[in-house]
Amino acid sequence: MAERFEIVERAILSMLEGKKYATLRDILSTMNPSDVAGLFDGLEDKQIPLMYRLLPKELAAETFVEMDPEAQELLIRGFSDNELKEVLDELYVDDAADLVEEMPANVVKRILKNADPEMRKSINQILRYPEYSAGSIMTTEFVSLRPHMTVEEAILRIRRQGVDKETIYTCYVLAKDRKLIGLVTVKDLLLAEDDEMTIEELMITNMIFVNTMTDQEDVARMLSKYNFLAMPVVDGEGRMVGIVTFDDALDVMEEEATEDMEIMGGMTPSEKPYLRSSAFDLFKNRIPWLMLMMVSATFTGLIMTAFEDALAAQIALSAFIPMLMGTGGNSGSQSSVTVIRGLSLNELDFSDIGVILWKEIRTALMCGIALAVVCFGKIWLVDHMLMGNENITLMVDLVVCCALCVTVVVAKIVGCLLPMAAKAVKLDPAVMASPFISTIVDALSLLVYFLFAKTLLHI
Amino acid sequence: MAERFEIVERAILSMLEGKKYATLRDILSTMNPSDVAGLFDGLEDKQIPLMYRLLPKELAAETFVEMDPEAQELLIRGFSDNELKEVLDELYVDDAADLVEEMPANVVKRILKNADPEMRKSINQILRYPEYSAGSIMTTEFVSLRPHMTVEEAILRIRRQGVDKETIYTCYVLAKDRKLIGLVTVKDLLLAEDDEMTIEELMITNMIFVNTMTDQEDVARMLSKYNFLAMPVVDGEGRMVGIVTFDDALDVMEEEATEDMEIMGGMTPSEKPYLRSSAFDLFKNRIPWLMLMMVSATFTGLIMTAFEDALAAQIALSAFIPMLMGTGGNSGSQSSVTVIRGLSLNELDFSDIGVILWKEIRTALMCGIALAVVCFGKIWLVDHMLMGNENITLMVDLVVCCALCVTVVVAKIVGCLLPMAAKAVKLDPAVMASPFISTIVDALSLLVYFLFAKTLLHI
Repeated sequence: MAERFEIVERAILSMLEGKKYATLRDILSTMNPSDVAGLFDGLEDKQIPLMYRLLPKELAAETFVEMDPEAQELLIRGFSDNELKEVLDELYVDDAADLVEEMPANVVKRILKNADPEMRKSINQILRYPEYSAGSIMTTEFVSLRPHMTVEEAILRIRRQGVDKETIYTCYVLAKDRKLIGLVTVKDLLLAEDDEMTIEELMITNMIFVNTMTDQEDVARMLSKYNFLAMPVVDGEGRMVGIVTFDDALDVMEEEATEDMEIMGGMTPSEKPYLRSSAFDLFKNRIPWLMLMMVSATFTGLIMTAFEDALAAQIALSAFIPMLMGTGGNSGSQSSVTVIRGLSLNELDFSDIGVILWKEIRTALMCGIALAVVCFGKIWLVDHMLMGNENITLMVDLVVCCALCVTVVVAKIVGCLLPMAAKAVKLDPAVMASPFISTIVDALSLLVYFLFAKTLLHI
Repeated sequence: MAERFEIVERAILSMLEGKKYATLRDILSTMNPSDVAGLFDGLEDKQIPLMYRLLPKELAAETFVEMDPEAQELLIRGFSDNELKEVLDELYVDDAADLVEEMPANVVKRILKNADPEMRKSINQILRYPEYSAGSIMTTEFVSLRPHMTVEEAILRIRRQGVDKETIYTCYVLAKDRKLIGLVTVKDLLLAEDDEMTIEELMITNMIFVNTMTDQEDVARMLSKYNFLAMPVVDGEGRMVGIVTFDDALDVMEEEATEDMEIMGGMTPSEKPYLRSSAFDLFKNRIPWLMLMMVSATFTGLIMTAFEDALAAQIALSAFIPMLMGTGGNSGSQSSVTVIRGLSLNELDFSDIGVILWKEIRTALMCGIALAVVCFGKIWLVDHMLMGNENITLMVDLVVCCALCVTVVVAKIVGCLLPMAAKAVKLDPAVMASPFISTIVDALSLLVYFLFAKTLLHI
């Protein structure tokens, strides 16, 4: 699929360079807007307006929405006021609001000047809601019906209003004060046995809706849970103000998963795609966490220094420090990743803490004992007998394996408790993932190791 | 929202225990199937069939689909053949196929016996496709139209066939041999200016479709990219066999993100939710990776042993080992998480390897230098002056900071190259995430450290 697309891409570029505009136009008009937008990525700046002007009007607007902000800005700067108006007229309000958010101030000014008054009002309304809220991603264009309408009247209304609506398939029934009282789907309308039935008789009234301030992630999860095409958004007074459609929910879920992974990898999340981020952007997102974790490693340093004498007396002990810390870190991150994802999917809740802890402790004991047994054998057979390291006595072997088992249990307990604790104090549980856990587990595993060494080896 | 739901839940449970069945029935019939299914989680086994029989027929079937496999099995075992038939009749084919996949053999036998012949055929067809393929998640029920139909005839056909179809909003135009030749949406049909227009005139012919064998993750990404309600699935001969709807795509994207996170956290991915997994299930998913990484830490042990003399001569050096390995591991995992996610979202490709490497090296140099400078100052001020550790000389400080800077660069290079390499040999890049990277980076950072120590401290 991807390969076939590259061939098309090369053919189109060579046509553009060969000025075969008529053929190019014919080919472009058979393509899907998302794919046409992809083509613009490969163009030089001066080719962008050239190819854009080849697109039929409707395809041009649909393609515009899918393009990179850089290309959009370049095009807008080159547009006449009339051209800009034409594009804006074709945009859905939520896409227009996204555009305004991405563009620099002087471009925004031109956009708002050329938008028709109603759209300008809607854009301003959407932009007033906090980022990541349902209000900020909704569109204000939806089909509204009145309860006393008949099926026939409703279908007529959809036919008249439908062109400009992002979805016509779910229609919302509003009372006089714009309060949301029910919904009907086009499927219900089409399959209704009698055209004279009223919307009131047909509509579903046990409404599921969100508030303008609901977090976008919750909106996406609810949409997915209820398999809705669109989720209605109401304001503080229960008046319906917009809808969030399933395609926006898909985008939100992808964004949120990426954000969680970035935080779990010890980075400040970024909305810029990797290839459009500069090395300095990456540096800014990564250095605070590295700095924090480097400085907090001072504790492990202090522990190492405190047990310097023990290490000097039994230099063989130091060989197992990386293995112990590594296994501890991995065990902890297994638990934390599991719990973080469970929390974010709402599969786990703070009230499950007892069940989780008990399950993790049993799992940890099984893992710890299995690892300790294998490790004991490995150290004795490989390090002691095969490598002939006389410093590794049976007691040293025992110290390492006891410490390993306890470390795994401690790591798993820390790994499951920290994200829960973060959730309890309304922090993002993802910040408690592997890098953070590792730092704590590193320190704990060293402590456990040296305490076993002191006790069992009497040093 | 969640709290309000818990209150409803408690009220319903106490009504069930108080045998207030009529009231309970009234309340349940106003609820959404997903929420009703959630209620069953809190019930004891013997209460499940009791409450299920209170549900109105249609709601019962819709609720059944959303329930846990355990509760479904329990219900089916208690159903009479007639009851089972009624539920099956209401199910969409893809949900029925999911059910068959989840149930034990004797339950499957009863399901297939009671399904009508057409559904049985469709279920068997879907089950023949490999797991995670488009064929295995599609439904075979969609609205098909013929090119010569008029708009009016098409709407009539939708009205007649629509009840049983999972979506009616996208209709597929098939030629006589069932080859897919175009699509029309219900929006197009409703907004068509002339009822006598033929489907052929109205339909879109530049079709985007997938094959039965396309990976489900690719299907979900394409659906999201093109904002489709459903993606048509064709067989090897181009004949249309089914559709994948957007709600399945939402589920697939959530599953795949969870799977990636689990692999990146060093676990075998599992489809069972955490609360339904036993401690032994968790043990089985986690122990292979821990074992693998523990054994591979033998290398770090060997390196430590090889440089035992250097460590004994300059015991202060050992204090910084955890910090160096930790910072190296974190730097590496930042790069690997970024690259893995980029690859999985198709934002990055193998051909970008040069760009990525160059960007990571520049980022790594900035991070490495910043960390080294801060670390140098911190060691001198805190460890040397404040703690009065005389063993930490300026040269030791220099060794640590040079090693730190080089380790960060090495870690970031390894972190971005390994997932790309995995992709190149068709492995899942996610296996190359933090635990795996840490093991390699641990070994490399120790090597770098000891080489600097040998050279600069002449030991």
